[in-house]
Amino acid sequence: MAPDGVSFAVPSPEAIDAQFAEIERRAAGRKVVVVQGLGFVGSAVAAVIAAARTPAGEPTYFVIGVDLATPGSYWKIARVNEGHAPIASPDAEFDRLIAEGVQESRNLCATSAERAYELADVVVVDVQLDVVDRAVESAADIQLRLSGLEAAIRVIGRRMRPDALVLVETTVPFGACERLILPVLREERERRGVTELLLLAHAYERVMPGPRYISSIRKFWRTYAGIDGPSAQAARAFLDSFIDTESFPLRELGDPTASEMAKILENSYRAANIAFIHEWTLLAERTGVNLWEVVDSIRVRQGTHDNMRYPGFGVGGYCLTKDSLLAQWSATHLFKMDHLLDVTLQALGINHRMPLHARDLLRELAGQPLKGLRVLVCGVSYLPDVADTRNSPTEIFVDALLEEGAAVTVHDSSLQFWPERPQVPFAADLAQAMSEADAVVFAVPHGEYRRLTPADFSRAVMVIDANNVIDDAKAGALHAAGSRLLGVGKGHWRKRGYDQLSACPKS
Amino acid sequence: MAPDGVSFAVPSPEAIDAQFAEIERRAAGRKVVVVQGLGFVGSAVAAVIAAARTPAGEPTYFVIGVDLATPGSYWKIARVNEGHAPIASPDAEFDRLIAEGVQESRNLCATSAERAYELADVVVVDVQLDVVDRAVESAADIQLRLSGLEAAIRVIGRRMRPDALVLVETTVPFGACERLILPVLREERERRGVTELLLLAHAYERVMPGPRYISSIRKFWRTYAGIDGPSAQAARAFLDSFIDTESFPLRELGDPTASEMAKILENSYRAANIAFIHEWTLLAERTGVNLWEVVDSIRVRQGTHDNMRYPGFGVGGYCLTKDSLLAQWSATHLFKMDHLLDVTLQALGINHRMPLHARDLLRELAGQPLKGLRVLVCGVSYLPDVADTRNSPTEIFVDALLEEGAAVTVHDSSLQFWPERPQVPFAADLAQAMSEADAVVFAVPHGEYRRLTPADFSRAVMVIDANNVIDDAKAGALHAAGSRLLGVGKGHWRKRGYDQLSACPKS
Repeated sequence: MAPDGVSFAVPSPEAIDAQFAEIERRAAGRKVVVVQGLGFVGSAVAAVIAAARTPAGEPTYFVIGVDLATPGSYWKIARVNEGHAPIASPDAEFDRLIAEGVQESRNLCATSAERAYELADVVVVDVQLDVVDRAVESAADIQLRLSGLEAAIRVIGRRMRPDALVLVETTVPFGACERLILPVLREERERRGVTELLLLAHAYERVMPGPRYISSIRKFWRTYAGIDGPSAQAARAFLDSFIDTESFPLRELGDPTASEMAKILENSYRAANIAFIHEWTLLAERTGVNLWEVVDSIRVRQGTHDNMRYPGFGVGGYCLTKDSLLAQWSATHLFKMDHLLDVTLQALGINHRMPLHARDLLRELAGQPLKGLRVLVCGVSYLPDVADTRNSPTEIFVDALLEEGAAVTVHDSSLQFWPERPQVPFAADLAQAMSEADAVVFAVPHGEYRRLTPADFSRAVMVIDANNVIDDAKAGALHAAGSRLLGVGKGHWRKRGYDQLSACPKS
Repeated sequence: MAPDGVSFAVPSPEAIDAQFAEIERRAAGRKVVVVQGLGFVGSAVAAVIAAARTPAGEPTYFVIGVDLATPGSYWKIARVNEGHAPIASPDAEFDRLIAEGVQESRNLCATSAERAYELADVVVVDVQLDVVDRAVESAADIQLRLSGLEAAIRVIGRRMRPDALVLVETTVPFGACERLILPVLREERERRGVTELLLLAHAYERVMPGPRYISSIRKFWRTYAGIDGPSAQAARAFLDSFIDTESFPLRELGDPTASEMAKILENSYRAANIAFIHEWTLLAERTGVNLWEVVDSIRVRQGTHDNMRYPGFGVGGYCLTKDSLLAQWSATHLFKMDHLLDVTLQALGINHRMPLHARDLLRELAGQPLKGLRVLVCGVSYLPDVADTRNSPTEIFVDALLEEGAAVTVHDSSLQFWPERPQVPFAADLAQAMSEADAVVFAVPHGEYRRLTPADFSRAVMVIDANNVIDDAKAGALHAAGSRLLGVGKGHWRKRGYDQLSACPKS
């Protein structure tokens, strides 16, 4: 079943074989790329590779997306073969490229048949590698779900052509290519008697969910590294064939460990910068300071401070909430170091607990336990106007409220339901939901929420603005009309008494 | 005595009075700005204000720099009155502006006479406010040297014209203008019976030692805030009169606490970003990764990652080594919060200990205690090709080496001596010093060190490259010639065995 509720029957092995015979026929005589894993990254990468053209205007590759014939994954294969992107995205080009590849140029298809790897000149690895638990208390508790990756690599080793390039795009603990993946590939190839030089490289993507999804693959920087010279050369030639490397020249690093570390470091840096500002958020709120305005005033310093993060509700997504854990796991398990990524890991913990600060503000406004309080939470995804709910901080927030017995309803401008918490009431009508709530929490700055006016509030409520959704003029008007407000990073609201009942509320 | 060893006699009170009578005569009928404190910031700010011109081309202000008639400070007054910048700077414009103001347009002078404040339309406060100890173990240990600032403010309150604007530029704990400075000014003014509205504002500078010293005041962003509307308005008009606010529009914040916090936050962010990368430095060195190259590959992401810091030797200067301590002091003492700036303070500690990592690398290369080892440390300042030694990390490094009994000599391309450690032998001749050392430590990437070639090493030595002074080609040549090398953030050197004796050193 796909996230939008549509079901597809997983086909029988015979049906898969029959389908694959057709793929094999179409792929004959062509350069074949197999993309392993049709998730957020793999499906988009497959679309971009299928769109690559030779100087003569012909499709450069025949692209086969491979995923598992399981109830949890098969829908992605079915979706692609219907000519649709498996992931809902505000970037229309994603869906268009898939449709074009499947239906027009007919050089893109998907299958679960393992024999696909036998056809590949290049296998691109985009399978998931997740941690068991993102909310670990200590470095020693970090655990990875490695078996899926290992099984995926083993299939490749068993099936791959001896001279094919294996390009790992999955975010892995650094050292994984050389210490985890290479041994598995070698073992499977040796078992088959393959003696040719193995081509193995790592090149990480920087896919951004949102309106520039496809562009974030094709027109963006890429870093890569091979386990040796020939591998690096093969990776460079392949990346060159579908990325705009004229505008974004490729960067080669010394070895895959460096490339793997770069990806994790990049995301850890972002996570650390967010955690840093959270400490100052709490400070600003107690000293009357509008931290949003302060950060704005500092971000004018381009090149040194323009990436300073704003206060906020929390951090979501697949990467920023876990990549630092991969780094520590590497240090401990792959390199047997007793080095602790102290500040880096603390940052992850701070970010994980960040939504609980919005809960604390709500408690403060309510002045009593939240039991029975009707709370409307506006925003379930983790990015404004993007329908991506993976590890959304709203999960942590809502779970905490439910635990206290609050009556929570959620709304999200870009969603019809909340896949991760289907049991939580999901409001279809924002106005009605607002009229039935004691407290409204703005978690995500979706455009719809930012456009709300004081007139859209049919009654005085408690408002927690966790993401600068309500500007000062609106806040003043809401307060004058009897609402009480607190905002994350908005010390000036408390200084102005917006958290107290207005002395003379308008009728 | 000035830092370059030239002595000036502190004049008698009578001589000061006589000199001031002359200043008073010249200032008569003019708009007067008094800059309090002629240190790194005040002297440059005075130069820039003196260079301001009216639309008619006349000097906008008569500028009086005021400092103390003490053995530690009087030389600054004497220097300025001779027509020279008190601070050595690679920015020739600094010296030129002082000379022009003092000798040509004759609207700039310096004095220790407190009566100067009686003449001022605007008093700019640029006195120092330092912590007692930067290397504190816990937040509770943070202490400020507040008496100097308080005395300075008290003099202003006692002498100022009732309608003068007091503009604080000193980096202060947030809340200081409203909770420390305002009460002192009020007290002194009330004692005099002054009842006029007090004009008080905060506007922080972003002076950068180096070749763009003057430009970093005149052509750069400024943030300000007043204690009330009239104060903010007066501050804006004044800043507008000498800063290029057309290219760099002023930013007003809600109150001085916000402006004071912005300054400290800005520097704390920088310090935190440096500390963050240090954790990864240790990781890279043990996993064969060249972190310099990795950071380069990540910094291509403009607007999010282009300010990522490189590995290095440590952090120096007046601000980044202390400003976070001011923030914690504020929270604890001015706002009575029990909030701990946890990650922010840890970052300062990490940065403070960072030079000891270079010491650890040296220990590793030496394979024995450092007692008796002849170590040449190249680089005493904290910025490349800038003669600024304030809180240089070389202090921490050299102190640690001396404690172990190493025979340390220092060299610095931009200095003739080391004011903070006059007892440490200072080499005038780099080549000779290198020929007499067992180990050479490159602490600062001065151009002279970066231009060294393997031929400049007359003998095989141990090399610690703490700041990417030696590129890989040179490192390979040095290693082949029998030297052994380790570099901060340069795991690939260890992977290549540069820390071991070359199997076949060239003769």
